[in-house]
Amino acid sequence: MAPRGTAREKLLNAAIKLVRTHGYAGTSLDDLCEEAGVSKGAFFHHFKSKDDLAQMAAQFWDERTGTLFASADYHKHTDPLDRVLGYVDFRGEIMDGDIPEFTCFVGTMVQEAYRDAPEIRRACRDSIFGHADTLIDDIQAAIDQAGLKPKDWTAESLAHYTQATLQGAYILAKATESNEAALTSVAHLRRYIELLFAPSH
Amino acid sequence: MAPRGTAREKLLNAAIKLVRTHGYAGTSLDDLCEEAGVSKGAFFHHFKSKDDLAQMAAQFWDERTGTLFASADYHKHTDPLDRVLGYVDFRGEIMDGDIPEFTCFVGTMVQEAYRDAPEIRRACRDSIFGHADTLIDDIQAAIDQAGLKPKDWTAESLAHYTQATLQGAYILAKATESNEAALTSVAHLRRYIELLFAPSH
Repeated sequence: MAPRGTAREKLLNAAIKLVRTHGYAGTSLDDLCEEAGVSKGAFFHHFKSKDDLAQMAAQFWDERTGTLFASADYHKHTDPLDRVLGYVDFRGEIMDGDIPEFTCFVGTMVQEAYRDAPEIRRACRDSIFGHADTLIDDIQAAIDQAGLKPKDWTAESLAHYTQATLQGAYILAKATESNEAALTSVAHLRRYIELLFAPSH
Repeated sequence: MAPRGTAREKLLNAAIKLVRTHGYAGTSLDDLCEEAGVSKGAFFHHFKSKDDLAQMAAQFWDERTGTLFASADYHKHTDPLDRVLGYVDFRGEIMDGDIPEFTCFVGTMVQEAYRDAPEIRRACRDSIFGHADTLIDDIQAAIDQAGLKPKDWTAESLAHYTQATLQGAYILAKATESNEAALTSVAHLRRYIELLFAPSH
């Protein structure tokens, strides 16, 4: 079945799929055109280069995942800590299916392209940290509600830490061709957050 | 200055250096020979292919880092929890210098090669999880000493989790071209372990 959407959208989706499966350098311009079912002429009508597509795909990914997370149920909890824990649970729930279907496009791409393609690196950074930053308000509200006065961590640093755990969980999943160690990592992350906010602290 | 060692060692070290900088698919056989200062003839005398070198390099990396960790000071603590926390601190201490000097060769390689090169994936898996497993005895001793009876985590799962955090910390470092978010992640990991073993639990 041919991919749906405009040629531009097909190429953006092809980039996400192929990079998640084969990595960025392991994906050629020919591979991208073939996967998208478009000609090279169409490619260069929309993008200046493979790097240009990658950068646009990072932004496209950011918008696509942004919509997914914005519409997820964890926002409905009235308690801010429940929203934070609900986010972590949701990350575990979507670690399902084949590895390329649930691992992170921008985390994979920045792993290899960070030094050779600064524009791609920045687009990946903006996606990873922009997403992390959506958690800050809920974490801060949970800190305030619990009356915590953390001396050596902040809502922002905990938000960033959730992404370190998730990105690393994907590497364990890839190394084992299984989501098991990844889900265990998510459970540890959840336990950490529970302990940080436990009444005794 | 030409790299030292035998042609085989030069190529193994070149693989580690170049993959940490440019990724695996982004490193060509020509790049490897040039970096090592050896001919293609010498390459094929020692390795069947780039994938063969990569697999051997994962084992070489495992031995090299194994020696580094085995000789590190954290083993000297008499208290097992101090040894575990000392390991985490040591991981933070060596997150120093330029990004390619402290990030993980096998974590980077498995990120892109997991699906297309099963032998490389297995070598990377063995390195990551083999290293994680060196922590299990100390974590178990700390659990026993503290009289903990964890219901939903084990020494092994916590050992694996440390690697998820570290691998993800490297991705944050690459995304930001800085070790700052990586060190913050290590500090969160340390805090989690402290909370797990805190007297109130």
